[in-house]
Amino acid sequence: MPVSRPSGRAADQLRAVSLETNVSKHAEGACLVKFGDTHVLCTASLETRVPPWLRGQGRGWVTAEYGMLPRATGERMRREANAGKQSGRTQEIQRLIGRSLRAVVNLQALGENQISLDCDVIQADGGTRTASITGAWVALYLCVEKMKADGLISTPVMGGVITDQLAALSCGIYQSLPVADLDYDEDSVADTDGNFVITGSGKLVEIQATAEGAAFEESEFQTLLNLAKKGIAELVVMQKQAVGL
Amino acid sequence: MPVSRPSGRAADQLRAVSLETNVSKHAEGACLVKFGDTHVLCTASLETRVPPWLRGQGRGWVTAEYGMLPRATGERMRREANAGKQSGRTQEIQRLIGRSLRAVVNLQALGENQISLDCDVIQADGGTRTASITGAWVALYLCVEKMKADGLISTPVMGGVITDQLAALSCGIYQSLPVADLDYDEDSVADTDGNFVITGSGKLVEIQATAEGAAFEESEFQTLLNLAKKGIAELVVMQKQAVGL
Amino acid sequence: MPVSRPSGRAADQLRAVSLETNVSKHAEGACLVKFGDTHVLCTASLETRVPPWLRGQGRGWVTAEYGMLPRATGERMRREANAGKQSGRTQEIQRLIGRSLRAVVNLQALGENQISLDCDVIQADGGTRTASITGAWVALYLCVEKMKADGLISTPVMGGVITDQLAALSCGIYQSLPVADLDYDEDSVADTDGNFVITGSGKLVEIQATAEGAAFEESEFQTLLNLAKKGIAELVVMQKQAVGL
Amino acid sequence: MPVSRPSGRAADQLRAVSLETNVSKHAEGACLVKFGDTHVLCTASLETRVPPWLRGQGRGWVTAEYGMLPRATGERMRREANAGKQSGRTQEIQRLIGRSLRAVVNLQALGENQISLDCDVIQADGGTRTASITGAWVALYLCVEKMKADGLISTPVMGGVITDQLAALSCGIYQSLPVADLDYDEDSVADTDGNFVITGSGKLVEIQATAEGAAFEESEFQTLLNLAKKGIAELVVMQKQAVGL
Amino acid sequence: MPVSRPSGRAADQLRAVSLETNVSKHAEGACLVKFGDTHVLCTASLETRVPPWLRGQGRGWVTAEYGMLPRATGERMRREANAGKQSGRTQEIQRLIGRSLRAVVNLQALGENQISLDCDVIQADGGTRTASITGAWVALYLCVEKMKADGLISTPVMGGVITDQLAALSCGIYQSLPVADLDYDEDSVADTDGNFVITGSGKLVEIQATAEGAAFEESEFQTLLNLAKKGIAELVVMQKQAVGL
Amino acid sequence: MPVSRPSGRAADQLRAVSLETNVSKHAEGACLVKFGDTHVLCTASLETRVPPWLRGQGRGWVTAEYGMLPRATGERMRREANAGKQSGRTQEIQRLIGRSLRAVVNLQALGENQISLDCDVIQADGGTRTASITGAWVALYLCVEKMKADGLISTPVMGGVITDQLAALSCGIYQSLPVADLDYDEDSVADTDGNFVITGSGKLVEIQATAEGAAFEESEFQTLLNLAKKGIAELVVMQKQAVGL
Repeated sequence: MPVSRPSGRAADQLRAVSLETNVSKHAEGACLVKFGDTHVLCTASLETRVPPWLRGQGRGWVTAEYGMLPRATGERMRREANAGKQSGRTQEIQRLIGRSLRAVVNLQALGENQISLDCDVIQADGGTRTASITGAWVALYLCVEKMKADGLISTPVMGGVITDQLAALSCGIYQSLPVADLDYDEDSVADTDGNFVITGSGKLVEIQATAEGAAFEESEFQTLLNLAKKGIAELVVMQKQAVGL
Repeated sequence: MPVSRPSGRAADQLRAVSLETNVSKHAEGACLVKFGDTHVLCTASLETRVPPWLRGQGRGWVTAEYGMLPRATGERMRREANAGKQSGRTQEIQRLIGRSLRAVVNLQALGENQISLDCDVIQADGGTRTASITGAWVALYLCVEKMKADGLISTPVMGGVITDQLAALSCGIYQSLPVADLDYDEDSVADTDGNFVITGSGKLVEIQATAEGAAFEESEFQTLLNLAKKGIAELVVMQKQAVGL
Repeated sequence: MPVSRPSGRAADQLRAVSLETNVSKHAEGACLVKFGDTHVLCTASLETRVPPWLRGQGRGWVTAEYGMLPRATGERMRREANAGKQSGRTQEIQRLIGRSLRAVVNLQALGENQISLDCDVIQADGGTRTASITGAWVALYLCVEKMKADGLISTPVMGGVITDQLAALSCGIYQSLPVADLDYDEDSVADTDGNFVITGSGKLVEIQATAEGAAFEESEFQTLLNLAKKGIAELVVMQKQAVGL
Repeated sequence: MPVSRPSGRAADQLRAVSLETNVSKHAEGACLVKFGDTHVLCTASLETRVPPWLRGQGRGWVTAEYGMLPRATGERMRREANAGKQSGRTQEIQRLIGRSLRAVVNLQALGENQISLDCDVIQADGGTRTASITGAWVALYLCVEKMKADGLISTPVMGGVITDQLAALSCGIYQSLPVADLDYDEDSVADTDGNFVITGSGKLVEIQATAEGAAFEESEFQTLLNLAKKGIAELVVMQKQAVGL
Repeated sequence: MPVSRPSGRAADQLRAVSLETNVSKHAEGACLVKFGDTHVLCTASLETRVPPWLRGQGRGWVTAEYGMLPRATGERMRREANAGKQSGRTQEIQRLIGRSLRAVVNLQALGENQISLDCDVIQADGGTRTASITGAWVALYLCVEKMKADGLISTPVMGGVITDQLAALSCGIYQSLPVADLDYDEDSVADTDGNFVITGSGKLVEIQATAEGAAFEESEFQTLLNLAKKGIAELVVMQKQAVGL
Repeated sequence: MPVSRPSGRAADQLRAVSLETNVSKHAEGACLVKFGDTHVLCTASLETRVPPWLRGQGRGWVTAEYGMLPRATGERMRREANAGKQSGRTQEIQRLIGRSLRAVVNLQALGENQISLDCDVIQADGGTRTASITGAWVALYLCVEKMKADGLISTPVMGGVITDQLAALSCGIYQSLPVADLDYDEDSVADTDGNFVITGSGKLVEIQATAEGAAFEESEFQTLLNLAKKGIAELVVMQKQAVGL
């Protein structure tokens, strides 16, 4: 009897995805991204100066921070601000988000400006880091578009400051079945878990595949990569609609 | 010429207030409270044990934590989890929220259970602490209602565990005009700022009035208290609707 | 039978209060304030520069810090320097002290100078925050007087840099009796506890009233405020004597 | 003209690798691993108890910590103990090491014991995290062998507690040339950088490939994976010699 | 022309020393020790349990903490509780105080009790650590005396729990002149600085001699040690009077 | 029957000591010092600038940091970077190392340069702080020699920047026998423990003698000092050979 996913989805079927804009009174760019019950608010904040180590070089910077509300999860987690430090997991994720987005930004064309992407998980149901990257790209785009409208940059938004679209997806092996867009029920028992960050033109930006239980075969990894490519192509289309490209 | 409020509101007029429930997949109780552009997500998390210093006494505990997303405000603020500590302002606010809510809870009737109220400001436009208290009461009520449904408590929800309703409002003197429910444009220039926490039956739980600039007269204080009593009476009606009382 | 206070004091009677000056070899201003067994050493330290965010504006700053010796209390408390952070209570108190004192200082007339008020509780028996404010005003006055003598300011001390006197008192409801200047025996069981900060001319600077147990009536609050006004008028006279006004 | 590596190595040629044992008077297992000028001391410390969250389940735990001496690098870095926290990079690496090693350990067979792997970089010249994993496996093996000799475990070392060998290699694209075992001169300018963790039997445990500059093609990734498989096969042979298998 | 001390004291002359008891409403033992303008409040706090690592062994513990009020010194120092950690100097001093006192306590006779000695510098003018040790012994004695009165210990105070008296003195070379009991004016320019902790019976407990500028000769060290022995013999007499021995 | 040392050494006999240079690819000076099984890697890192408080005075600075690998000891110790702070012991030791080395450096002749000495204990068997000082002097010398070769200083290395040699030794009383160079087996049970820092010309730089158990006699102290002088004279000869003097 074939394995069926807890949600009843097909192996390559994403959850209902939405990329809502106009969700912040203050931020220069913002996107509330939902992958099913995973909801992440992504804001882009512009500062017209760069970190000290970058000053005077005519280049900008893109950085990211990640957080979860304490009760975004099934059991309340301790608030990191109260614990006095960000967990290793949090730091790992926010480094991934920042590094990924920088791969599609021409920092020279950005000028001496910094864009901070805050990805805050309002509700979690698996795949928060890949949803964050997908939504952060939208917030980033809207922020650069506003900079363009305000005359802060001279090159085009797309092709100038932003060199490509970028989205991310988690894929994994659930009870020996390779599936796309793991939700929490799948993620918590998956044997192998992969996070894939891919550009609009299909190039690879980051691959992280991990054996949670047993080590995995190269062929299994290939299947996950193919699922990711297919799913991310769908996400890229939704991003276009969200920002009006 | 009389002073007019930036928003055009009457002196005793609240902003559009909403108390949305069913906003969390995971929390035992939750309320997304909005006072105009101030949006706070309040969740109540139940733990069936109490802090060490309270164990074995047959009583429960209610505590609160407060946070702001980094770009909830006009300028991005440093993330407290990244700074490594909660600011004095944050601690002051969360202590106020917890203390206020405990004033309307019969901790004996709660049994050896703890309810943690998390008030996270998604967007800020003045009055976040009073909005938090108003929304937290709703989340608390829903959590206790669920405990009742699950057989965890034996007394009634209202009158048993929860002894009264509770809401809060900030009132202050804006350009010599006493006004209710200050928004950010008013709050940032107000001479005097007061936060009032009052029960459904009109009793006082907490009064905090502060001279931001010049010291104030007792008669001015009395006017602010009257505005608060009137506004909180309106909030109490909305809470009833939100929880179905 | 009427309620009697543990100390045998009348309801409106303060403890023995003293404001001793000349208690520091080093500080620009200093006052050892005693309210009965509550002893707080208040020092004012002058720096001829202001915090970074205030530089170049021609204005000064007044700030405060609060601490307790570990064995100031009945049971030894953990040293905050050892714990690695100041408690929420400590931060709340020191913010209150600084904010209150600034309400009677003309920061423009102070020039680009900062005065740091350190209030360190040597022995605690209730009312440490209001004693701190009362003593800190004396230390502040002496510091500004020294600045005047040293030619650092050009306006008068009183009426120029310092616009008014300032003192504080805690009042509360002890076994249904409203009383002034709560000591620890009363404070630890009081139903309602209020801290009042009032100027020499009788204006209000800060009101904080809290229901420790049951919520309180507006009339009760009014009684506490009246007790505070009466007691603070007495403290203001003692301050005059202490600084020679 | 073809690209040549700074070191003159062939594209698939590893640096001189050594896995020295008997390097600690105290540790239950230890290995000083050298990949050219990258030197990492790996120690395995046995504790006959497990973390609180694992107690009473009859299973053991393997964890890892990573550190660098301040002058392991070309410029002195601030000591993390002095800075008061581990960097995000450090946490990311030590989480990778621990997770990877656990993939080849039967935690049930380990009993309620914990093995802590400390990987301390004495000198750095690129590839410290992959060298750490390769050396940590040797230290782990020696520790388990000692446990066997001491009668602490009943299953065989290999095939019982340890299910497979494990080694790691970094491969990347240096000036468009895919190369194995990047040294610092290559790593600091590589376009794409991948870390591969593979078992003795050729299964994948962890893949992390990152576009440092431009995004990369799937075919390039495949070449890096093949280089890693070839190089790790060589490392596995050296591990066998080091532990006498 | 011979060197004269800034204070006009003879080379072997101590400052005016006082050891005031009855200075704390709460502590089990307390002493306000003054060496001229150096004032340290020493309290002894009794806990009827010991640290976890000592439980069940029938022995007690003596520990010490040291602190300075921010304006104890000529220039205000940052409050350690605010800085978030104790300085290396603070830790060094409190370790010295605790270790020294334990040298004259029979921990077995103390039973499973812990005495915490808090030495808080109210005003500093050199020699705070040696004054702390001298005053802490008095606080310790009074605490043990109270334990005896309360029936918590069965052996005599002196000769049972406390095996000897203990006092300390700083001596150093000021402008080539060896002097006893350095004040701040001397200490800040001394070439060599020594802290000596000696028992009532003249045995050595701790010697710390440091070349602040140039290295020193063995004969110079010997002179300092002799000054210390003479001065500490005087302090021991004053301790006897303070505690009524 | 006379006491014999666990190692069989004569009372004044040092362990096998080696001072290996050329042990770091990156550091300006380095020495791996071994006293028997105590191994410390000492590196000297040059920065061509000084701390803020020293700028513009034409003088340099020498500072030191100390650390232990977690499994340098018989039982694994918690990593200080993970614990979030350096222990009091660590800070005490690194302050001692820095202070001692500065006693033989002419900071004026060093120019506005800072040398950071990192002493990292790879393996511990007693006497790590004195081994660190002995090895750090070698690393310091090599660093200054390199500065001279690079034209950064104009005075000679010895007699100019470095005014004397410096070495250190721990001596103590083991089972009533005064012995030199305590190893862990002796140190852990010694009654009295002394650390002595002495120059090449026999002057004293630092003396720290501590009664671990019972207080000690002046004559015993004198014996320890004599043992230290003898042993350090031997270490000074080895240092000469190590640096080619």
